[in-house]
Amino acid sequence: MYALWLEQQQLRLRHDIPRPPPAADEALIQVRMAGICATDQQLCRGYYPFTGILGHEFVGEIVTPATRAGERVVGEINLGCGTCPLCLQGMSNHCAQRRVLGIKHYSGAFAEYLCLPLTHLHTVPDKVSDEQAVFVEPLAAALEILQQISIQPQQRVLIMGAGKLGQLIAQVLRLSGCDLSVCVRYAQQQTLLERLNIRCLKESDLAPRHWDVIIEATGAENGLLQALECVRPRGCIVLKSTFGGTVEVPLSRLVVDEIRLQGSRCGAFAPALRLLEQGVVQPEMLLSHRLPLQQGEAAFQLAAQKGVGKVVLCP
Amino acid sequence: MYALWLEQQQLRLRHDIPRPPPAADEALIQVRMAGICATDQQLCRGYYPFTGILGHEFVGEIVTPATRAGERVVGEINLGCGTCPLCLQGMSNHCAQRRVLGIKHYSGAFAEYLCLPLTHLHTVPDKVSDEQAVFVEPLAAALEILQQISIQPQQRVLIMGAGKLGQLIAQVLRLSGCDLSVCVRYAQQQTLLERLNIRCLKESDLAPRHWDVIIEATGAENGLLQALECVRPRGCIVLKSTFGGTVEVPLSRLVVDEIRLQGSRCGAFAPALRLLEQGVVQPEMLLSHRLPLQQGEAAFQLAAQKGVGKVVLCP
Repeated sequence: MYALWLEQQQLRLRHDIPRPPPAADEALIQVRMAGICATDQQLCRGYYPFTGILGHEFVGEIVTPATRAGERVVGEINLGCGTCPLCLQGMSNHCAQRRVLGIKHYSGAFAEYLCLPLTHLHTVPDKVSDEQAVFVEPLAAALEILQQISIQPQQRVLIMGAGKLGQLIAQVLRLSGCDLSVCVRYAQQQTLLERLNIRCLKESDLAPRHWDVIIEATGAENGLLQALECVRPRGCIVLKSTFGGTVEVPLSRLVVDEIRLQGSRCGAFAPALRLLEQGVVQPEMLLSHRLPLQQGEAAFQLAAQKGVGKVVLCP
Repeated sequence: MYALWLEQQQLRLRHDIPRPPPAADEALIQVRMAGICATDQQLCRGYYPFTGILGHEFVGEIVTPATRAGERVVGEINLGCGTCPLCLQGMSNHCAQRRVLGIKHYSGAFAEYLCLPLTHLHTVPDKVSDEQAVFVEPLAAALEILQQISIQPQQRVLIMGAGKLGQLIAQVLRLSGCDLSVCVRYAQQQTLLERLNIRCLKESDLAPRHWDVIIEATGAENGLLQALECVRPRGCIVLKSTFGGTVEVPLSRLVVDEIRLQGSRCGAFAPALRLLEQGVVQPEMLLSHRLPLQQGEAAFQLAAQKGVGKVVLCP
């Protein structure tokens, strides 16, 4: 089958990859659509030494088992060992031995077919289109914030970074009724947010020590330092950006102002599917380019450009 | 009156300081006992450019107003402006214009007398001795942790640092029934904790990615990095140490493992007085030296030695 293969930071289209054989507890899934995300681009730059088929945001159709053939599904991406204390406590997303679809020791979704355990699959409701379902994984990551902290309707909330993840977070957090602002850099980002009547601010407009909650989704190393200037005492900063290396943090500011820093990563899929079925989030508006899998290398170059929306691949 | 005066990082005993004149809403208080704390020592090293009478942990006796003369009191140390949004929201501890007893723009407790607003005073119950009451301020700082995070009885909790604050935190957190360990460096620290049947560990015994909650009270710059190695995914690190400068933090560890960092500082006095009245904390066991105020300079040298307990001054 065709697949996008990453090896030593080189991404290339291959057509000689055998269709993966599903294990007894697994489904064979035909990929309908798969999204390129910032983590994929970081993997191409060597953030983590992965060799194999990239891709973890997808919607597909079950091929086997035959009893469920034709069912449209999305799939959770973390595969824990199932036996360690974290797995047994329901935190397999954090299992130290976990494999991760298209990220770590597990073949990903930029291919014609993939395999996943049946336990990891969620049926996509008929009302939800492929163009929406392909966003379930990052939408779940946005919802993870609400699993970790409470956003109250009277709070002033700032999202720093209006890339794809920042936009999804904005779509989710506006549902709380909170006083929401998003710090934007590119005109295209602002256009999308203003279509939803979400307030946009420029970096130069940010008031210091002002926000109750700040979501740091810039992907930039100095994002936290900016957030520290803008959060009020006893406020909370949620960190969504990952990158290699360290950042020099003035820790005493955290202590004296009693600030909470909350790291945040993947989330559960069921809440994301519920919001899509309710029709209260519109991730599909972020989809800017749809290319065939065979043009995957070009699609990655496109996705790397600043201000470009979500690029998806269709096998 | 006699007082310990800090000026340009030089601490000296003066006897030429006038007795402070209380304002209309203030009490004049005769100091009975005042404790030397790590913050006092940091102020002597220039952590914050304070000039004036040092000292913020005290128990005293009201002189005026006459209607309350003789009443034994402790006093909250943060004096907000009373008019800014933070003060109006009940967060005067975080008022940007706040004065702080013996720390910032307000004369402190290493003196024969001090003044504080009546609103800041708490009556010390008869059951509570001076030797206990002098610990109310740091005990309140220990209790602040429980105002910020929940400690559950089944959680594994590690306190890093067994100085005076670490010991008080241990005395408070053991009351939750949690599985508590304290990382100790000095034999004297271990003796005090073992008297309360609190488990002591050495740094070399700390298991990685193991603890649900870690309280970082080492006062050392690398404390956070050690805590990051020992906390489990989705765990929480409470930061109590303050120092100048920055620390290089691997932020992606926070994000990938969804760790919470919680800065923590001062707390409310009423809960601390309740625990003392209930007799379930014994801070007085940490008191190792009692000196007259006139030997204040020597007392500071004593307090600076590693492993020494609480040094208090009596005017």
